[in-house]
Amino acid sequence: MIPHSPTGTIHGVGLGPGAADLMTLRAHRLLSDARYIAYFRKAGRAGRARKTVDGILPCDVTEFPMEYPVTTEIPLDHPDYNETLSGFYATCATHLRTLVETGEDVVVLCEGDPFFYGSFMHLYTRLKDSVPVQVVPAITGMSAAWTATGLPITWGDDVLSVVMATLPAADLVRHMQSADALVVMKIGRNIDKVRSALKAAGKYDDAWLVECASLSEQTVQKLSQAEGRVTPYFSIVLVHGQGRRP
Amino acid sequence: MIPHSPTGTIHGVGLGPGAADLMTLRAHRLLSDARYIAYFRKAGRAGRARKTVDGILPCDVTEFPMEYPVTTEIPLDHPDYNETLSGFYATCATHLRTLVETGEDVVVLCEGDPFFYGSFMHLYTRLKDSVPVQVVPAITGMSAAWTATGLPITWGDDVLSVVMATLPAADLVRHMQSADALVVMKIGRNIDKVRSALKAAGKYDDAWLVECASLSEQTVQKLSQAEGRVTPYFSIVLVHGQGRRP
Repeated sequence: MIPHSPTGTIHGVGLGPGAADLMTLRAHRLLSDARYIAYFRKAGRAGRARKTVDGILPCDVTEFPMEYPVTTEIPLDHPDYNETLSGFYATCATHLRTLVETGEDVVVLCEGDPFFYGSFMHLYTRLKDSVPVQVVPAITGMSAAWTATGLPITWGDDVLSVVMATLPAADLVRHMQSADALVVMKIGRNIDKVRSALKAAGKYDDAWLVECASLSEQTVQKLSQAEGRVTPYFSIVLVHGQGRRP
Repeated sequence: MIPHSPTGTIHGVGLGPGAADLMTLRAHRLLSDARYIAYFRKAGRAGRARKTVDGILPCDVTEFPMEYPVTTEIPLDHPDYNETLSGFYATCATHLRTLVETGEDVVVLCEGDPFFYGSFMHLYTRLKDSVPVQVVPAITGMSAAWTATGLPITWGDDVLSVVMATLPAADLVRHMQSADALVVMKIGRNIDKVRSALKAAGKYDDAWLVECASLSEQTVQKLSQAEGRVTPYFSIVLVHGQGRRP
């Protein structure tokens, strides 16, 4: 009788902000030993997560790129968007589940920290009750961004709020007003709304724009000095707290 | 003529939440090569940061423990508190500056992420204009805490607010009400205030308490099931966001 193969584990491995040496030792070990990896990417692109691990993976690793069926073709609030993505995540989850049920471990590459606005969360919720899933936290993109400015983000009792530029303008203004320190993510085509909201909240002149934090193409500048600049979706806007300090 | 020795660099190196293998490759390389290290600790203790790097440092490394002159003996809002700490940071900064001016590099060990409510920031502001200082970001304690709960902290357009338990109760309630996802830090003796504020904000039943995230002594439980528990200063309370997800 052939013994039943024990189930493998899915490892959702955070890679951090992008610089390869800002990966953790735990992530590096899992990647160096990986037999199967999976990662999200835009169709036709190499994938940001995949590029981060170039040179670390064993040469005989098996790769499963998961290509988004939509990115910006359908508006976020359209019912088709949700339905299309939901089907995509379900298909990916089924593939990974089948693989680990044969006893193989799979490493899923995650940009940033997996549980902080990450795509892996959509696989995680579909898998965690049926197969073993382990998550390796990582440095967030926002940590790399505030480090890049050369200024601490929070002092003493400062309240830090993290807001998405995809929110309605009025919500943005309200949250920008009530926080001491501020991180704005998912910017891209929402940059004009972010600028207006920061002005309405009286924080525009203190805001910084960081692109590609931790990578060689990193740029850091005051937002007010980047007028008219087209910023990528992964750029981050920051306002530093000014709290109590001895 | 003896050539003037070039100035060394102060490296403020984030160690992450505490598990040694959640350190970055960059931090590990700097520590493995270190000739001089410095770190904060409570008087009479080994120091949490120092314990994290056991077994990584070269055996001939020179150590400079910086022992806090006060921790909880003087209230935070007392003028003596600020003055005593300010003098302490100035003395430490002078020692480090003198050392790097002889051409030596110094690695300052930092728990968590150096620019996120970190003690290193107080040295950084006193040193950055006179000697080279480099900062290595790291995984925050809060990332390790939400990973430990096995639940993503933020989805879609969720607003995450990070608040210190040292804030007045009314401010805590206001920020707890307006955020979707919540991280409460600096808890310790403020735990009863945090409980009351969460109840007033209608979020008590959804709150989690995580102690010693990522370490072997880690505990994770619903806050409502930890009544009467004495929690350490470094414990973290979390409320997860429930935002849009396909």
